[in-house]
Amino acid sequence: MNNRPLSQLAQQLGYTFNDASLFEEALTHRSAGSNNNERLEFLGDSILNFIIAHELFKMYPDVDEGDLSRLRASLVNGDSLAEISAGLQLGDFITLGAGEKRSGGHRRKSIQADCVESIIGAVYCDSDFETCRRLVLKLYQDKLNNIPDISTLKDPKTRLQELLQSRQRALPVYEVVAITGQAHSQTFEVSCTIEQLGIVATGKGGSRRKAEQVAAQVAFTKVEQQFQPVK
Amino acid sequence: MNNRPLSQLAQQLGYTFNDASLFEEALTHRSAGSNNNERLEFLGDSILNFIIAHELFKMYPDVDEGDLSRLRASLVNGDSLAEISAGLQLGDFITLGAGEKRSGGHRRKSIQADCVESIIGAVYCDSDFETCRRLVLKLYQDKLNNIPDISTLKDPKTRLQELLQSRQRALPVYEVVAITGQAHSQTFEVSCTIEQLGIVATGKGGSRRKAEQVAAQVAFTKVEQQFQPVK
Repeated sequence: MNNRPLSQLAQQLGYTFNDASLFEEALTHRSAGSNNNERLEFLGDSILNFIIAHELFKMYPDVDEGDLSRLRASLVNGDSLAEISAGLQLGDFITLGAGEKRSGGHRRKSIQADCVESIIGAVYCDSDFETCRRLVLKLYQDKLNNIPDISTLKDPKTRLQELLQSRQRALPVYEVVAITGQAHSQTFEVSCTIEQLGIVATGKGGSRRKAEQVAAQVAFTKVEQQFQPVK
Repeated sequence: MNNRPLSQLAQQLGYTFNDASLFEEALTHRSAGSNNNERLEFLGDSILNFIIAHELFKMYPDVDEGDLSRLRASLVNGDSLAEISAGLQLGDFITLGAGEKRSGGHRRKSIQADCVESIIGAVYCDSDFETCRRLVLKLYQDKLNNIPDISTLKDPKTRLQELLQSRQRALPVYEVVAITGQAHSQTFEVSCTIEQLGIVATGKGGSRRKAEQVAAQVAFTKVEQQFQPVK
């Protein structure tokens, strides 16, 4: 093992463990044995989801629960956890089994992302809710300061529908216009028609659903252009 | 409205709200207007999942995260929340829109279950984490004292596989032996064969997966009988 000493990570986290074995457990991948971080990850995931839910609840007093859910999903997911993990250079501190180590497991995003959650769980076990909450808010500080626009979190079909409804227009009609390719690698072509506005858009995808979303995105842009006042 | 006064519910919960409007919001279904309980339900759901996760984490120090997940899912779900709601007679306190009221919405299980979560969210907003945790543990006291056996939470295929592995036996082989019925209401018949033990079991179901589970359950019983010492 060429792991860096955990004290360096503790310094970055701004938290020193009373029980150092919890910290070690949080950084032990299941490939390294039975005393690994999976239980702490289960716990940490539930804490993280709660803390972020509460932050969003306070930050967006007028947003409905569907949007709160989407906002949370945009903050608590494998990619964002991997980014936080990269910021902490967690890969340098993770204990892996021999096989995982050989295959570069410490660089694997999912392993690093899981460790962020297990550390959160370990800090909670080692301290109290308020201390853990402060750590989560510190880890998420940048992300909470740069939350994406709610409207962009919705899928194109939903966005198109809401845009049309806000202008009291009839909803779009989707139709499959072509299916090509072999049974297991078919391509769907779907049209999205908004008759009232004279708009027809098409989209292609590996499934009907995906093709509809592509078509809806194209239609959305066309509708926006129509609605925009000419300057 | 013939709702009972909220003070009666407060007494049952053992919690008196500082901000009574939060309590009212928690008991207002979306059919009754925009100031409804959906945001509090979103928050309460995340608190509840965390608190139960932590209880199970402490109660089962040797159980892996897969079993912890299954245990939690057996405690936090629509049915168990509806049971808790029935114990509190929540239906008598929920504010519904006119349409929902006419169609008996206060007796609807899902509406009642959601209210348990929104009350948890409201108590958290009105007090602090520790107060909310105590309330959740009170609501879940019976359920936490009567947690189902972990092995029964697994699906039959998983249980059969684990039973055979524990005895170092080869795994079962599943095969579709018949598909009958029209395209949209097919019945699958699947066999589950454990050659080493001379066991063949069959099961039927509306999907291949369901038929496999039925066959696995039958096979499981047969394997258990073989493994049982003759008394």
